[in-house]
Amino acid sequence: MNNFIFQNPTKIIFGKNILPKLGEEVSKYGKNVLLVYGQNSIKQNGVYDAVIASLKTTNLNIIEFGGVKGNPILSHARLGIAKVRENDIDVILAVGGGSVIDECKAIAAGAVCDNDVWDFYIGKAAIKNALPIVTVLTLPATGSEMNGGSVLTNDETLEKFSMGGAFTYPKASFLDPEISYSISLKQTAYACSDIMSHLMEAYFTTTSKFLPIQSGYAEGVMKGVMSSMLVIMKEPKNYDARASFMWGATLGLNGIGGAGVPGAYFPSHALEHPISAVYDIAHGAGLSITTPAWLKFKKDEVKNRILLFGKNVLGVDTQSADVVIEKLEEFYTSIGTPIRMLEAGIDTPDIDLLSFHADKLFRLWGNTNYSMNDFNTIYNLAK
Amino acid sequence: MNNFIFQNPTKIIFGKNILPKLGEEVSKYGKNVLLVYGQNSIKQNGVYDAVIASLKTTNLNIIEFGGVKGNPILSHARLGIAKVRENDIDVILAVGGGSVIDECKAIAAGAVCDNDVWDFYIGKAAIKNALPIVTVLTLPATGSEMNGGSVLTNDETLEKFSMGGAFTYPKASFLDPEISYSISLKQTAYACSDIMSHLMEAYFTTTSKFLPIQSGYAEGVMKGVMSSMLVIMKEPKNYDARASFMWGATLGLNGIGGAGVPGAYFPSHALEHPISAVYDIAHGAGLSITTPAWLKFKKDEVKNRILLFGKNVLGVDTQSADVVIEKLEEFYTSIGTPIRMLEAGIDTPDIDLLSFHADKLFRLWGNTNYSMNDFNTIYNLAK
Repeated sequence: MNNFIFQNPTKIIFGKNILPKLGEEVSKYGKNVLLVYGQNSIKQNGVYDAVIASLKTTNLNIIEFGGVKGNPILSHARLGIAKVRENDIDVILAVGGGSVIDECKAIAAGAVCDNDVWDFYIGKAAIKNALPIVTVLTLPATGSEMNGGSVLTNDETLEKFSMGGAFTYPKASFLDPEISYSISLKQTAYACSDIMSHLMEAYFTTTSKFLPIQSGYAEGVMKGVMSSMLVIMKEPKNYDARASFMWGATLGLNGIGGAGVPGAYFPSHALEHPISAVYDIAHGAGLSITTPAWLKFKKDEVKNRILLFGKNVLGVDTQSADVVIEKLEEFYTSIGTPIRMLEAGIDTPDIDLLSFHADKLFRLWGNTNYSMNDFNTIYNLAK
Repeated sequence: MNNFIFQNPTKIIFGKNILPKLGEEVSKYGKNVLLVYGQNSIKQNGVYDAVIASLKTTNLNIIEFGGVKGNPILSHARLGIAKVRENDIDVILAVGGGSVIDECKAIAAGAVCDNDVWDFYIGKAAIKNALPIVTVLTLPATGSEMNGGSVLTNDETLEKFSMGGAFTYPKASFLDPEISYSISLKQTAYACSDIMSHLMEAYFTTTSKFLPIQSGYAEGVMKGVMSSMLVIMKEPKNYDARASFMWGATLGLNGIGGAGVPGAYFPSHALEHPISAVYDIAHGAGLSITTPAWLKFKKDEVKNRILLFGKNVLGVDTQSADVVIEKLEEFYTSIGTPIRMLEAGIDTPDIDLLSFHADKLFRLWGNTNYSMNDFNTIYNLAK
């Protein structure tokens, strides 16, 4: 096991009917609130009204900032930073999924420094401070509600990069499973793929033989999320299934899964970011495409992990990595998330361009063991 | 799933050769340090010297307070509180296992209030503040290094009660698996029983049918700790096994396992505390006695959970709860922790006295569904 430091101070408020406590929680951090959201779904499903009602009980000044995109973009984050400065904002309230929360982290860190915020994403500057963030999670998937990470796309260069650190953990996150009732099965499937992938990244990339705690953790949360997904497909308003799915999403990327694991460097994500940055598909849809492709490419090297996953997560007792990968693809297909770019509507992918972006991202994330030829091979497996 | 609030801000510094960073971490919280430890084992295994060397690099004033007992007692905690007040202590450094850390929490909370510290344990007062605590874990078992809980025995009344809350979480905990190399196999077995029991309590007491995340988490950590124990028995200095065991102990009681689980009320612990308070046996040894007894008493009511545990943790596919309990007892026996009071040297237990104490503790912890007759039956199963 590797040495590690783990600290995750985010307060999770989880359950039914929790939004009335939101105003009190937000007001701990100041008076002027930037309320950030995405498109208009929160105005249709009642969440916006519940949020405003709760904020009003504590007389907070609300400045609204909507329009965050599904793959959040740098130019919009810069507008948010300007809005914070204009309005003397004390605290940022993210109401949305990972996209909204990730953009809020960019705004929170970017508003209190002299650098341009993109410097954090390209490794040119380190975050030294950030405004406090509170979140109301509407789409469980990315785990951003309980970690410091943020992914943003530079809409000029189409680079989809990430940053993180201790300053951008949300102070508090409100997780009400009932809010997730209205998420379509398609979007829930993409979320399922995203959550699984967060756990699979460390699970499959490690070269260590004895990591029973991290493996058991990942297997337990993956199995839990997958079984919840199957219940949700039959009963989209099953509370326990939505709650398990939501809590599983948070536990999927709150730092525990990868703590101490040698070799975790998120290859499926680094392969996916170029796809969703260039073709604007859902991140989870991209991950159910890149994960099997990466596994096929690495199947000899990480065979023992693939077989363990087969046995302990998929319940397939086999000595063939191919069989396990096929079963994983069957699961993805059964829940309705694509396993090839063609299925996601990308019929003529620009593999050289994708490889170019992947190469940059792998290097940025500290992995230099892949050649352009390797990326080419993997993206061809994902076509 | 039940509503819950989860927040665990403790910083974990995990791995080899981490003690040189201790001085810097402690000095964040002040100048005058109360260095608390147990008997003299840390002076024999080099930990004391390493701690002192690290503290000296940052010129901290060190006041020593040794002599914490394996089952820490109220009268000694009161001496520690006096010592804090006499020496204007800023921060408490616990170097030891759960006993030392638990007593430090009593000292940290008791030193900054007007109440007598025992008031916190009997529910007569709530903790509103505490001195900062840093820990160096020498015996992984109780999880106290990453939670707010504390168990203390009143040496006048022989009540072994607990308290907790947000103020007594350690600020930082240093977990170096190599420090645990010198723990005897017997003590490691008791620790294994303790860790398993922390996860089993919520796992077995829930009445909910669909809790795949919490169940998967508990199963993963339990399996990981059990398999680590088996490796340690063959190779006491296997780093990965000691590291997995240590990290599993922390994850076993850091609040995740029980979050959202309906019905978690720690019956095996409430049955055990009277035994170790009256007969001064190791807590883990007591738990491997009370857990099977409680399971036998409740085997019809929680049969589905026992069978799930059998299948997913012990690898026993059966429809008989008795078979699973027998297999669990076999595991305990195989690692060298007792399953009956007689094996722990208690040949004529005072079952009425134990039941009297258990009754008080069950009520204090919010469970009024057991009669004196029930306690009598369970302790007879544990004889």
